[in-house]
Amino acid sequence: MARVVLGMIGLGTVGSGVVQLLNQHKHLQLKKIAVRDLDKERLSNPGCPITSDVSEIIDDPEVEVLVEVMGGEEPALSYIKRALAKRKHVVTANKEVLAKHGPSLFQLAREKSVTIFFEASVAGGIPLISTIQRGLGANQFSAVTGILNGTTNFILSNMEEKGLSYDAALAEAQRLGFAESDPSADVDGHDVAYKLSILAALSFQRFVKPADIFREGIRKITPDDLALAKEFGYRIKLVGTARNTRPGDKNGALAVRVHPTLVPLSHPLAAVSGSNNCILVTGDAVGEIIMVGPGAGSLPTASAVVGDIINLESALKLPDFASYFQPSITSEWAATASPGDWISPYFLRLSVADTPGVIGTIGTIFGNHQISIQSIIQRGVIAGRATIVILTHGVVGSDMDAALAELKQCAFLDSVVSAIRIYKPA
Amino acid sequence: MARVVLGMIGLGTVGSGVVQLLNQHKHLQLKKIAVRDLDKERLSNPGCPITSDVSEIIDDPEVEVLVEVMGGEEPALSYIKRALAKRKHVVTANKEVLAKHGPSLFQLAREKSVTIFFEASVAGGIPLISTIQRGLGANQFSAVTGILNGTTNFILSNMEEKGLSYDAALAEAQRLGFAESDPSADVDGHDVAYKLSILAALSFQRFVKPADIFREGIRKITPDDLALAKEFGYRIKLVGTARNTRPGDKNGALAVRVHPTLVPLSHPLAAVSGSNNCILVTGDAVGEIIMVGPGAGSLPTASAVVGDIINLESALKLPDFASYFQPSITSEWAATASPGDWISPYFLRLSVADTPGVIGTIGTIFGNHQISIQSIIQRGVIAGRATIVILTHGVVGSDMDAALAELKQCAFLDSVVSAIRIYKPA
Repeated sequence: MARVVLGMIGLGTVGSGVVQLLNQHKHLQLKKIAVRDLDKERLSNPGCPITSDVSEIIDDPEVEVLVEVMGGEEPALSYIKRALAKRKHVVTANKEVLAKHGPSLFQLAREKSVTIFFEASVAGGIPLISTIQRGLGANQFSAVTGILNGTTNFILSNMEEKGLSYDAALAEAQRLGFAESDPSADVDGHDVAYKLSILAALSFQRFVKPADIFREGIRKITPDDLALAKEFGYRIKLVGTARNTRPGDKNGALAVRVHPTLVPLSHPLAAVSGSNNCILVTGDAVGEIIMVGPGAGSLPTASAVVGDIINLESALKLPDFASYFQPSITSEWAATASPGDWISPYFLRLSVADTPGVIGTIGTIFGNHQISIQSIIQRGVIAGRATIVILTHGVVGSDMDAALAELKQCAFLDSVVSAIRIYKPA
Repeated sequence: MARVVLGMIGLGTVGSGVVQLLNQHKHLQLKKIAVRDLDKERLSNPGCPITSDVSEIIDDPEVEVLVEVMGGEEPALSYIKRALAKRKHVVTANKEVLAKHGPSLFQLAREKSVTIFFEASVAGGIPLISTIQRGLGANQFSAVTGILNGTTNFILSNMEEKGLSYDAALAEAQRLGFAESDPSADVDGHDVAYKLSILAALSFQRFVKPADIFREGIRKITPDDLALAKEFGYRIKLVGTARNTRPGDKNGALAVRVHPTLVPLSHPLAAVSGSNNCILVTGDAVGEIIMVGPGAGSLPTASAVVGDIINLESALKLPDFASYFQPSITSEWAATASPGDWISPYFLRLSVADTPGVIGTIGTIFGNHQISIQSIIQRGVIAGRATIVILTHGVVGSDMDAALAELKQCAFLDSVVSAIRIYKPA
């Protein structure tokens, strides 16, 4: 069988998994691994030399493929650029670099007639990227939606099942190694936003600037939200969506968003547990395809990295094969739709004074803003204050903002405790 | 963009969907369609000439790709062989031809340096084949399991929900066009067996002779079975499995089977409704990947066919690309494991005389055959006859056969009403 010579940067969780899997694929020769700190404790026998000098890999003409599994924006970005400039193919798991610099990186790859493979950058072991890119190639996509972050999924499940506060559930996730000491990338939705940018590039041919992605994390979710949602038949998940507002139109604005979302208990998204991911892809021909599987972890993510390497290797012998693998992604960033234009049903929790006429006033204000209420109930009065829970039908975001602003002028309102969007099928 | 010239055989449900989708992909030129009967009512404007003479396509040197969507063993097999012999690539949705003749067809394709694409042959619109072949290429697979037939899924759901008999549910499916007038291919499991042979070829590099696949259909399932299963927390589905008894070993015997199966209500397989399919793929690196989506229908199946055509077209310009797409499938048929060697838990329903000592005797017989009982209950005595329901732990098939044979010698036993296997994770 043909051989291909690889160099790898990074030897953490994913890198160790790659080394382990490559042992089963002897025609893929890992020549050298570069790491930041040679003294750090790691895999005892990676089967090849380790260096702290990346140039030994990037400047080695024998290395045909750079495997980048170090993560983070810099210096990974610079290394990838240098490798592409030297006409090396790149296999990367780096969602941040791709989301922030995808357009220029794919442009550079095209100029140099090399390819970037990135199956591992989204949804870990789930072969989502090859599915969108190859398996569903006959479709015009309208939306890609999913649970794309295992850490927040774990925290929310623990809050719901054990009634833990967000802080307590986060602390447990950190203790178990499921969350970083600085959890922001996960709990504030950055990680999901990066993945959505990549999914938009595949589905709609345009990357989305992470800064243009609407992002709301899970820090404000409380056990009360989870319990009340369940009473109404919902579970709260951190759901990301990339949607083309004009399906099939390459200039249609994209609505790209990640925020806590109430999903019906009977929906596949509600059943996703732990570090599993679940993604729904909606295409005009196929309808809806659902994929579920491990979204993180050493071997599942390595499965995606090594899968890319194998596909690359088996094609390397073809002359000019790179064009076949270059995704048709424009070098322009996508235009995005304003959150004010989206339509979502809402779950609202209000703290109000327990006085007559409150529900009537709320109903009138909502009616004036074209908000149709599906159900409204008053719960447990304590010391003259009551909780009102409202579920609405689909509402234009700007209408909801205006209604809540007007509500805040009312003397009876203490606060809008929660305003969480409800899942709406594509 | 490059153009490719296609000829298609068949213009039924799938073919009409292909014509519809090809309208969105103008670089794919459908030159001619061959049909069996020119007078049959069909799509009014397919956008190209229709002929009843297949030679006008197969012998046309301009046609590069034969799209075969007529179905059935012959004459489809002969047409595919003739096209391959003339060095045309083939895109087919034909599970029966592939399952029965896969080894020789792929051998012929290799000899002629052409490719056979067959995404549509299994699981309709779900891109299962590209997932196994490309996305999960780094894995050694241990099992592929799933609900692969929408007709039986529809019938079983209707029996459960409406308490219908098998005959009544079949009649309704036939009335709605979900079942053929001769339903055997679906209800006796042939259709699933063909698909399992193809999945085995992809996952384990060997086709399985359909005659070597253990096949038990749904004709004997009763509403009582479904209701009792539900009481115990299960739903009955027609589940197909292809398993390598020695994962990673290319000579490991394959256990390939389709039969009614009790799946836990909380399992994704239990949630699959209507014509949807659900497939679980288990690999050593990734763990378990689940895919759900439309397993049949005009546009979903056409999504798979046209996806194949697009992937083929974009690669056609590469010299000698065929080798990249030729799956590594041996030309030998797989060796299969005997059902007597499989281990499954069982759901049993026995009709017995309501006399003392019956449960004791059953327990003793089962114990003598290494069968561990998980629960045993006696239900509704009518006219001196009682129903006994038994759920066992995992049992070697031959032990269960021996125990049931011994049980049939007991005077108290009227009959073994049902013996249905329970789902066991890979």
